[in-house]
Amino acid sequence: MEFVTGATEKEVLSIPDILEGDYEGKEIKINGAIHKIRDMGDVVFVVLRKREGLVQAVYEEGATNISRKDLCEEATVEITGAVAKEERAPHGFEIRLKEVRILSRPTEPMPIAVNKWKMNTSLETKLDLRPLSLRNVKERAKFRIQEGIVRGFRDFLHGQGFTEIRSPKIGARGAEGGANLFRLEYFHKHAVLAQSPQFYKQMMVGVFDRVFEAAPVFRAEKHNTKRHLNEYTSLDFEMGYIDSFEDIMEMETGFLQYTMKLLETEYEKELEILEVTLPKADKIPQVRFDKAKELAAEKYNRKIRNPYDLEPEEEALIGQYFKEEMDADFVFVTHYPSKKRPFYAMDDPEDTTFTLSFDLLFRGLEITTGGQRIHEYQMLVDKMAERGMTDEGMEQYMMIFKHGMPPHGGLGIGLERLTMKILGEENVRETTLFPRDLNRLEP
Amino acid sequence: MEFVTGATEKEVLSIPDILEGDYEGKEIKINGAIHKIRDMGDVVFVVLRKREGLVQAVYEEGATNISRKDLCEEATVEITGAVAKEERAPHGFEIRLKEVRILSRPTEPMPIAVNKWKMNTSLETKLDLRPLSLRNVKERAKFRIQEGIVRGFRDFLHGQGFTEIRSPKIGARGAEGGANLFRLEYFHKHAVLAQSPQFYKQMMVGVFDRVFEAAPVFRAEKHNTKRHLNEYTSLDFEMGYIDSFEDIMEMETGFLQYTMKLLETEYEKELEILEVTLPKADKIPQVRFDKAKELAAEKYNRKIRNPYDLEPEEEALIGQYFKEEMDADFVFVTHYPSKKRPFYAMDDPEDTTFTLSFDLLFRGLEITTGGQRIHEYQMLVDKMAERGMTDEGMEQYMMIFKHGMPPHGGLGIGLERLTMKILGEENVRETTLFPRDLNRLEP
Repeated sequence: MEFVTGATEKEVLSIPDILEGDYEGKEIKINGAIHKIRDMGDVVFVVLRKREGLVQAVYEEGATNISRKDLCEEATVEITGAVAKEERAPHGFEIRLKEVRILSRPTEPMPIAVNKWKMNTSLETKLDLRPLSLRNVKERAKFRIQEGIVRGFRDFLHGQGFTEIRSPKIGARGAEGGANLFRLEYFHKHAVLAQSPQFYKQMMVGVFDRVFEAAPVFRAEKHNTKRHLNEYTSLDFEMGYIDSFEDIMEMETGFLQYTMKLLETEYEKELEILEVTLPKADKIPQVRFDKAKELAAEKYNRKIRNPYDLEPEEEALIGQYFKEEMDADFVFVTHYPSKKRPFYAMDDPEDTTFTLSFDLLFRGLEITTGGQRIHEYQMLVDKMAERGMTDEGMEQYMMIFKHGMPPHGGLGIGLERLTMKILGEENVRETTLFPRDLNRLEP
Repeated sequence: MEFVTGATEKEVLSIPDILEGDYEGKEIKINGAIHKIRDMGDVVFVVLRKREGLVQAVYEEGATNISRKDLCEEATVEITGAVAKEERAPHGFEIRLKEVRILSRPTEPMPIAVNKWKMNTSLETKLDLRPLSLRNVKERAKFRIQEGIVRGFRDFLHGQGFTEIRSPKIGARGAEGGANLFRLEYFHKHAVLAQSPQFYKQMMVGVFDRVFEAAPVFRAEKHNTKRHLNEYTSLDFEMGYIDSFEDIMEMETGFLQYTMKLLETEYEKELEILEVTLPKADKIPQVRFDKAKELAAEKYNRKIRNPYDLEPEEEALIGQYFKEEMDADFVFVTHYPSKKRPFYAMDDPEDTTFTLSFDLLFRGLEITTGGQRIHEYQMLVDKMAERGMTDEGMEQYMMIFKHGMPPHGGLGIGLERLTMKILGEENVRETTLFPRDLNRLEP
């Protein structure tokens, strides 16, 4: 009988193995895809692409076991050769090829130049060829940063006593109601895709006090803008026993600080590839919704058209105001009008036309909506009645308030938007692995 | 201008704060839900439920600022009182109540006794009342363990150089094809919910070499069994540059070993609450599919009816065989028949009626399907032709093979099933937060 005893060490090395070990002059094995071949006549530079970066290998006719013509870009190979110092090569070393074992070969030439530093191609083409265009070093670096943001979110909240939950994405009704629900047939029942884990997060506050989830949400919105996706990742948390909605803003600020530090230390190489300067999150100004509108209107000579909503252009100006006036990348806009917030939002007892809620603007774009929720059954029933709503289909949500809920609140962060703004991209599709929008369902 | 500067320390303490600090005889503040009230006449024990466990407080008429009748179960409170050693109380201390501040009150009595150690109620009732039944200490502990499994999966793979990806859940077609797809209308196009991230994982192997995802998958299967869900969490990974499909089994074994250690150290309390003995994953036997069938048939006098498939009962017997013969909780069954595996499975070059693939059985239940995939374009095209398939709608998947893919493979683990078997539960709904099945779409 054979047994499997765990992940075994392989003979092939990684880039960190080589950098941390003492391999100069020694023969090693390494594998990767041939990213680029630069033919200099006598010698040929063969650049391998690995998950950790690029590695330069040097082919010399006669010194290597295969023929020059057997090498082609996007072949995958395992190579054997001696490590030599070379300042001009990535990571400061190169490998003098002795043996090349071809693992696979492409059958067609690449339709886009993924091995160029900058691919001069349209977003549409990049997305059509997504499985290939992501092989570009700059393109893929964006999604390493995105991984880092999610890790930061989870690790920070875990340290703050939050429990991770997994709420269902198919349900009988949406948390926010309305027109932007994707509908499907579920064994002869009507079902919808979750717009938000809102109800489930709140239910779970009654169980674990503090919970989070990082998962897809679905919105059938017909906006075809640079900021909208029909499927995106929502970083959600919800926390009980809050003293005020400001506890939630504090927790988000803590997350941003933690994550910027994590990116700085563990994703340094990707930040360098993307030439990114991380935003400052050490102190984030907070300003009331009505005040923010006034400040922007005054400074930029803009008329306030709608006192109950922030237009995208106004968000941009508020962002600009706080950047100019106090060098702030982020600003919390608080006390949104009640009529623009969902029924479960807690109204401000001092003026119930406003709510104890906030948006976080990052360089002029909304990346978070959050706030305190109503936790008392009767208050919720009254507010629903005011809005002409019934609790039909929401009995199990209403149940938690009948049976005791602590004061609580939470937020949702759009991961792709946050990534976009950190990286200075202009279109959220640039920071979505496989975006879904009005026109795009593939790949 | 006010600024938010990060998560601030609160005056209220957690259970670990009290256990790690020097609070005996000192007055502290703590909050929680009133889990249970035990009225002993002169004194009243008020047990608080917090995320970290239970805390005993003692109410004494006259010593506490509120009246006995103001206390009720499932109210949420913030209490002030002195810490006293008490061996019989949870965590070895109790709090002598001086002040109770009521944060919220239930409006109705609980329909189920969530504060009993064992809720004597049917699974159906528990699921109907899920937002409440999860407040039970044993119920919620299951989902802490589940959190731990997912953490183990991510942390282990991260350490092995894997990158986390987020693939779309709405797509134009399914990876596995067939009848079990949920269909929806997507802006006048036909769309489906992802059965598996298979194609995306493979695309991303061309980008990051090693990738993983822990996300929902959707299967419109009409099975209403104790093992099936229509939405579940799939722990998926895919790795390039493998020497053989055994690399994948080794990685999975490494994950299991890492995770059992993590549960043992960080989820000790929950394991104790659930009276769980963790399975042994130090060495996992591997046996060929045909051999496994024979062994079980021989030992348990069972006729082999279908040489190409494993019936659930056969899986159970194979599990029993390896438990009895070598005290193994897990067994890798390898080389599944080609006709039972998807088109992208790599056939065994020594006998192409079998594949270089495996299932992992855990205590007689399949919890993983994995294997090596075809990485050569022509081989894939030929196999599809053999099966009468066209690549229509799969052009972007086929693209990666045209442009070079390393030898690779991967697996998918059913999170809820793995949790179920670790906890010794009989129904996968017991270890699903909000299950979705043929009949259940709520809560």
